[in-house]
Amino acid sequence: MTIDDWISPPARAAESDDISLDELRLATRNHGMPLEMLDLDLTPPGLHYVLVHYDIPLLDPATYRLSVDGHVERPFSVDLDELATLEPVARRVTLECAGNGRARTSPRPISQPWLDEAVGTAEWSGVPLAALLDRAGVRPGAESVVFSGADHGFERGIEQDFRRALPYDEIERDEVFLATAMNGAPLPPQHGAPVRLVVPGWYGMAHVKWVVRITVLDRPFDGFQNATAYRIKRDADDRGEPVTRMAPRALMHPPGFPDFMSRTRIVDAGRQALTGRAWSGFAPITRVEVSTDGTATWADADLAPCVAAYLWQAWSFIWEATPGPTELSVRATDADGRTQPLDQQWNRQGMANSHVQRVPVVVR
Amino acid sequence: MTIDDWISPPARAAESDDISLDELRLATRNHGMPLEMLDLDLTPPGLHYVLVHYDIPLLDPATYRLSVDGHVERPFSVDLDELATLEPVARRVTLECAGNGRARTSPRPISQPWLDEAVGTAEWSGVPLAALLDRAGVRPGAESVVFSGADHGFERGIEQDFRRALPYDEIERDEVFLATAMNGAPLPPQHGAPVRLVVPGWYGMAHVKWVVRITVLDRPFDGFQNATAYRIKRDADDRGEPVTRMAPRALMHPPGFPDFMSRTRIVDAGRQALTGRAWSGFAPITRVEVSTDGTATWADADLAPCVAAYLWQAWSFIWEATPGPTELSVRATDADGRTQPLDQQWNRQGMANSHVQRVPVVVR
Repeated sequence: MTIDDWISPPARAAESDDISLDELRLATRNHGMPLEMLDLDLTPPGLHYVLVHYDIPLLDPATYRLSVDGHVERPFSVDLDELATLEPVARRVTLECAGNGRARTSPRPISQPWLDEAVGTAEWSGVPLAALLDRAGVRPGAESVVFSGADHGFERGIEQDFRRALPYDEIERDEVFLATAMNGAPLPPQHGAPVRLVVPGWYGMAHVKWVVRITVLDRPFDGFQNATAYRIKRDADDRGEPVTRMAPRALMHPPGFPDFMSRTRIVDAGRQALTGRAWSGFAPITRVEVSTDGTATWADADLAPCVAAYLWQAWSFIWEATPGPTELSVRATDADGRTQPLDQQWNRQGMANSHVQRVPVVVR
Repeated sequence: MTIDDWISPPARAAESDDISLDELRLATRNHGMPLEMLDLDLTPPGLHYVLVHYDIPLLDPATYRLSVDGHVERPFSVDLDELATLEPVARRVTLECAGNGRARTSPRPISQPWLDEAVGTAEWSGVPLAALLDRAGVRPGAESVVFSGADHGFERGIEQDFRRALPYDEIERDEVFLATAMNGAPLPPQHGAPVRLVVPGWYGMAHVKWVVRITVLDRPFDGFQNATAYRIKRDADDRGEPVTRMAPRALMHPPGFPDFMSRTRIVDAGRQALTGRAWSGFAPITRVEVSTDGTATWADADLAPCVAAYLWQAWSFIWEATPGPTELSVRATDADGRTQPLDQQWNRQGMANSHVQRVPVVVR
């Protein structure tokens, strides 16, 4: 008997609509944002979604060091005090898990079983990545930059630290930074303390937590999380396309109040203000539409302007609710014309889904 | 068609080992404490377990008022400023959900599907309940005190604010208090901001969040959460016994590192320090035992002394790990002689389970 007999098999799809014990073990650790928290501009820890592949490491700030190496002139490392002397940067960024919506696809890929709620918005503050790369002196021909986390595990047979690379041209866009604080307080352990990456506009897998090493490469990175995981694949032989920026999505604060177990919403008849947020990793949201009849018809919602790229925008819609059951939905369109599908095109890992939310309600 | 057609049926057990969509909807909102966080004395928000029956209400601190009424001489209400003028109290308290372990029982009662992780320890600070009751002047013959939360929903056909009562003799033990802060910061929304109850030693359902009203009764309280939910029932006709204090439990930081999907632990052969915490709502923990052979044999762990009632105690155990698969377990015994069963006696709601943790590991 080898370790291979005990670790999880390659990517697979569920044979049943029900959730397996494997998936539940992830779901009791990781959590989404309860959707009524769409009311908050900034999502506090414990309400902001969290997805951790392995264990949460507790790094000692006193001994923490961040290394910068690889295809650079002057590799070096810094501690937290030195990091804090760099030019500060802060930005409000909406973050969504690349697997959001996975448990609503069929057949359901076996992994963290998100419904709609793997999102949150925080003000992340820290230091620009460029300041560190400038100090190291990136040599000509850089192609990718690898960020290594301190979290360690097995995944589909491969032992690894969590490592993700960004193409060097993304780095050159100069939006990427290292965060040491969330909403004005030191990073909580589950969000990557003491240092995490923030890649505005990209799905969460790019925002490496517990970063301990930054390595510049003169070639593309072929590590597991880039080359195998986080790709849009149609079948087992498909090498797939990389998962990058967040597809447009709108979510609604489900109106009324819930039934404990079914989460069905009970709403009083009459004028109801529906509210929520919408975002895209590609471009500002320019249109939000609401359906109150199970996606049969749609009407435009009021949409707040985009005040900062990669930050969710509030929307609202007045609904004259009449008694009976119905289903509410909302969909977003961005300035590039990307919108949300009613039927999601399936992929093997359940990545980058953006099908519209469906909120069953009973009006009384 | 009525609302009854759309809300969840009476308590029921699962027909399959797999988790239903209803249960998943709860599991994506509520979350446990990742067990590696047993390393921390105090559990931060987002790592401390959360169980919310309905929606999380966002109460405005500026307009918040807490009423004290019922079987009292002088009913009154206070705002947060007045509350802050009362004598302060602070206490480190271990909190566990009454449904912890539910998803490990068979047949599994349909509700929040906890495995082992619905626990956390925080320093809660606020004001003693006695100060408020003294001001109101409890009349002779008080039998129970009802705490009403601002969270509102349907549950098994009954529309309700979340309300739980304590017997008046529990109140007189003078340990119950109202918390306005968690670990030195204002309460986060999901933990009951701006005011929650803390009932040291009791399962979480007693620690009512978002408390807006305290009502003294001259009779037992017959509300849903006391009379129907949170009772140990063997069958549908059984009125059951109320769920009260936490049964003894020990949990282990699973050693080594995980496989992403199965959560199986991979451990290097040799000397391994196993660590964790143990607690009981009845009495100090006096013994912790560890099994490294699938509960066949047990050996005593080193146990830290009890420094405060209702606060978890650290334990540790040196394990000489030899290659191959095995299962680790730990069990606690308290000063009253209560201990943890290997096979849990089943009850309809999956309440107050305390069967021993089982941690599959592969030693390499």
